[in-house]
Amino acid sequence: MQFMRALEQAWKIKNTLLCVGLDPDPARMPEQFRSTERPLFHFARAIIDATADLVCAYKPQIAYYAAIGAEDELEQTIRYIHEAHPGIPVILDAKRGDIGSTAERYAQEAFERYGADAVTVNPYMGTDALAPFLAWKEKGVVILCRTSNPGARDVQDLVAGGGKIYRIIAEKAAAKWNAHGNVLLVAGATFPEELREIRGLIGDMPLLVPGIGAQGGDVGAVMRAGMTARGDGLLINSARGILYAGRDGDFAAAARKAALDLRDEINRHRSGV
Amino acid sequence: MQFMRALEQAWKIKNTLLCVGLDPDPARMPEQFRSTERPLFHFARAIIDATADLVCAYKPQIAYYAAIGAEDELEQTIRYIHEAHPGIPVILDAKRGDIGSTAERYAQEAFERYGADAVTVNPYMGTDALAPFLAWKEKGVVILCRTSNPGARDVQDLVAGGGKIYRIIAEKAAAKWNAHGNVLLVAGATFPEELREIRGLIGDMPLLVPGIGAQGGDVGAVMRAGMTARGDGLLINSARGILYAGRDGDFAAAARKAALDLRDEINRHRSGV
Repeated sequence: MQFMRALEQAWKIKNTLLCVGLDPDPARMPEQFRSTERPLFHFARAIIDATADLVCAYKPQIAYYAAIGAEDELEQTIRYIHEAHPGIPVILDAKRGDIGSTAERYAQEAFERYGADAVTVNPYMGTDALAPFLAWKEKGVVILCRTSNPGARDVQDLVAGGGKIYRIIAEKAAAKWNAHGNVLLVAGATFPEELREIRGLIGDMPLLVPGIGAQGGDVGAVMRAGMTARGDGLLINSARGILYAGRDGDFAAAARKAALDLRDEINRHRSGV
Repeated sequence: MQFMRALEQAWKIKNTLLCVGLDPDPARMPEQFRSTERPLFHFARAIIDATADLVCAYKPQIAYYAAIGAEDELEQTIRYIHEAHPGIPVILDAKRGDIGSTAERYAQEAFERYGADAVTVNPYMGTDALAPFLAWKEKGVVILCRTSNPGARDVQDLVAGGGKIYRIIAEKAAAKWNAHGNVLLVAGATFPEELREIRGLIGDMPLLVPGIGAQGGDVGAVMRAGMTARGDGLLINSARGILYAGRDGDFAAAARKAALDLRDEINRHRSGV
């Protein structure tokens, strides 16, 4: 299914803005997975089955798989989401960016090999590095704008002629890169004022918002700053706070409870819209 | 071996600034590889054996492997370089960049899993996204500064308070990120004036220079703009111009001749230094 349509359906029909980040770290998984084969897949599958009715998207982080040569488990996880829980879009968090001929390969990696519905990309190399991703009209292209980490300031906050770099990225995204209506931006929960500025520049374009939970972002501040007039427009990501909510046999129930609590906390800030 | 030492030895003892980019594209390989198993490895091995005495480094591009699920052939290729041609450093071209906890995984991917001696990284997310790579003191960290593609202008040429973004990156690299002496920058051959400016900001820090050949960069202009007073400081990358110099049974000899010609052309501009 077309990414943007799937996302909007999930927002409306399932009434959730929650995105669960799949960052499976063997050292933090419950004991039972450490001696299993394919632990990243089996752990992620349990998390997915416990949370599928609560999310508008899943966001697997490829680095956790690539670090240990477990790409096959990532393929299997994305296939599992599509087969067992059809309609939930999958955003591959890969932050790719390279010259056009190489970017074509990275788009092939994300969309053909892994079957992801969207991918995160880095704008530092400019328009021709983004174009091979943007050409996949049915897929989502999630461009880094103002990230959630402290070092985001070093480059993204530099003030150029037209304003801070992240503002220029947001403006380019709205005016130029979104010709097919398939662009989203990353705006970190840890900087709600910047998030508010970005929302002001991009209309209803969806924002992927990392940084809730372990990184310290506040849900209410994010909602007030980033929600559209319709009460959506956000994918609020949580990974560690859900994946590792419990450590033992009850980890799946604990993950479900953490996801439910966060979804409901988000929705409390939508009420009255 | 420590990356910077290996690079300097190759420059001096082998008298070459040539870096061969390994971008193995099945559609452009000689016929004989299309029906082989592990074509990316076998093709790259033939190129490596034909050029090993002529290069100061190899730079495999991970996207060509990741697009088709051939990470095992990338592992095998890097292992082959280290075993068959010890002393030649391998730069994994991956342009990674993410928040600290994820960047640690990417560093693990490049240095532990693949055994690369250096990796290319993207500075958009700032210092804490680079730190996990920089902490590997024996490894090289090749930070994108002014890339060779047309879209490089879109972000890297924006003028902020301290000058254009790529100048700020170069200054930060020299003043802050290079505490362990393991930083290199990417400066495209297609923009020799920018390359000259960058050289003026970073002392003798090595520059990885893509964009010769298929992208249109000129060797003489690059050498005049980027060479250090010692007559080195550059890794001039060529991929397509060498890999696909010949298409049939003679492809390895054609690759060797192209590499030899380029090495010699580069060295003509070093003479008299």
